[in-house]
Amino acid sequence: MLREHEIQIRVRYQETDAQGHVHHANYLNYFEMGRIELLRANGTNYREFEASGKMLVVSKIACRYFHPARYDDLVTLKTTTTHIRGARLEHHYELTRKGTLLVEGETTIACVDQDGKVCRLPGFLLLEKD
Amino acid sequence: MLREHEIQIRVRYQETDAQGHVHHANYLNYFEMGRIELLRANGTNYREFEASGKMLVVSKIACRYFHPARYDDLVTLKTTTTHIRGARLEHHYELTRKGTLLVEGETTIACVDQDGKVCRLPGFLLLEKD
Amino acid sequence: MLREHEIQIRVRYQETDAQGHVHHANYLNYFEMGRIELLRANGTNYREFEASGKMLVVSKIACRYFHPARYDDLVTLKTTTTHIRGARLEHHYELTRKGTLLVEGETTIACVDQDGKVCRLPGFLLLEKD
Amino acid sequence: MLREHEIQIRVRYQETDAQGHVHHANYLNYFEMGRIELLRANGTNYREFEASGKMLVVSKIACRYFHPARYDDLVTLKTTTTHIRGARLEHHYELTRKGTLLVEGETTIACVDQDGKVCRLPGFLLLEKD
Repeated sequence: MLREHEIQIRVRYQETDAQGHVHHANYLNYFEMGRIELLRANGTNYREFEASGKMLVVSKIACRYFHPARYDDLVTLKTTTTHIRGARLEHHYELTRKGTLLVEGETTIACVDQDGKVCRLPGFLLLEKD
Repeated sequence: MLREHEIQIRVRYQETDAQGHVHHANYLNYFEMGRIELLRANGTNYREFEASGKMLVVSKIACRYFHPARYDDLVTLKTTTTHIRGARLEHHYELTRKGTLLVEGETTIACVDQDGKVCRLPGFLLLEKD
Repeated sequence: MLREHEIQIRVRYQETDAQGHVHHANYLNYFEMGRIELLRANGTNYREFEASGKMLVVSKIACRYFHPARYDDLVTLKTTTTHIRGARLEHHYELTRKGTLLVEGETTIACVDQDGKVCRLPGFLLLEKD
Repeated sequence: MLREHEIQIRVRYQETDAQGHVHHANYLNYFEMGRIELLRANGTNYREFEASGKMLVVSKIACRYFHPARYDDLVTLKTTTTHIRGARLEHHYELTRKGTLLVEGETTIACVDQDGKVCRLPGFLLLEKD
């Protein structure tokens, strides 16, 4: 199972703010894209996963901002799974532009059922051998 | 029944873009707030309406931009119902700052059921006498 | 000069709303991506254009919504330049999923200087021969 | 000087996602609104502050999500300044609905000049006596 995955993201105009760079909240959307593509690279389609009646919800985030991304930048996001167990998934994120670290973060994701009750991650997400 | 309603909106930082003013897509969110508050002023809670199994979806918008709103502006949105009949609701919007017209628009809203099929607006929305 | 360009867009989770599909305001961001990529395909980098002291602002939009896009859909946006003259650029947009038309729209873009005054489009944008 | 301030926020439709509640990235916009209104309650207009050539940028955030906010919820955000010194401002945030804690977070804000260089907070922000 892949633990690491990289995607490239082109910064959209709408993601910037009047300070001229990406609004700090929008990096969280990039992180979400990163973990979804990591799942896809491992053969898991998150939309189908949700259709099965469970969903993944973010329970915790942390983020450090070093340098701003700007409109039209082509940035690279590396997403790493750092922990999978029980009902919990943890990821680490590094957003870079030509090798310079712009933003770094971590999320903890919980698996919940349709009533919002925490439940065990399905087997295919728990396979930790690589 | 009220046909016109005004709300005040404080422009958020995240709604601006690198050009220094509100990104043009975000005015559509203001319009949506305007028509929801017009419904509320008429005694209709849109959340409860959706809970009843129907929903209102935007089928058409038009928008003209005259002057930009900027971060922290306190702008006034006047929403007017211009047409209610069958499955269709039409609104007109005028966004002003201290009397100056910034943005103007219209939307057509359709009532659909959970399968996305167009259906008649409920009776309380059709009452057109004032 | 190319008058038509197609891009593919993967719908992001954050772009959806509680009705389960893309919020209607977000299609305007897709349109913006479409015209920027059309400019790029024609050799014009919009970021550099802005750095030259002029900018393009949206003065008018119209949009019809036929079918909703959903999370994780891979949709196709065809952007067509329909008019270039003086200070004005007009585009037409068709968003499709596997050949089905979801959303269709038009925008009028004006060229303005840093004071917001309308000014003539630069020569390289006015070249209309293909 | 006030260290604590409360605002009420009505959840917008556009802020929700297909899971039916506020997308996790959007709470960061609420936090930003909270600290701007705390500044305003203390007599500081952030827009004027930016016009003076300095700006505040987020350098660090942390956020824990306990319960989701839903469309049309009227939520209460309490913003507390926990640290002001040199070039750094720290805030704590508690978002509640009818007394139930939904989301909790912290941000670290740095003061930078137009070149992005960290600089001392202006005097009026450093006054810590109340």
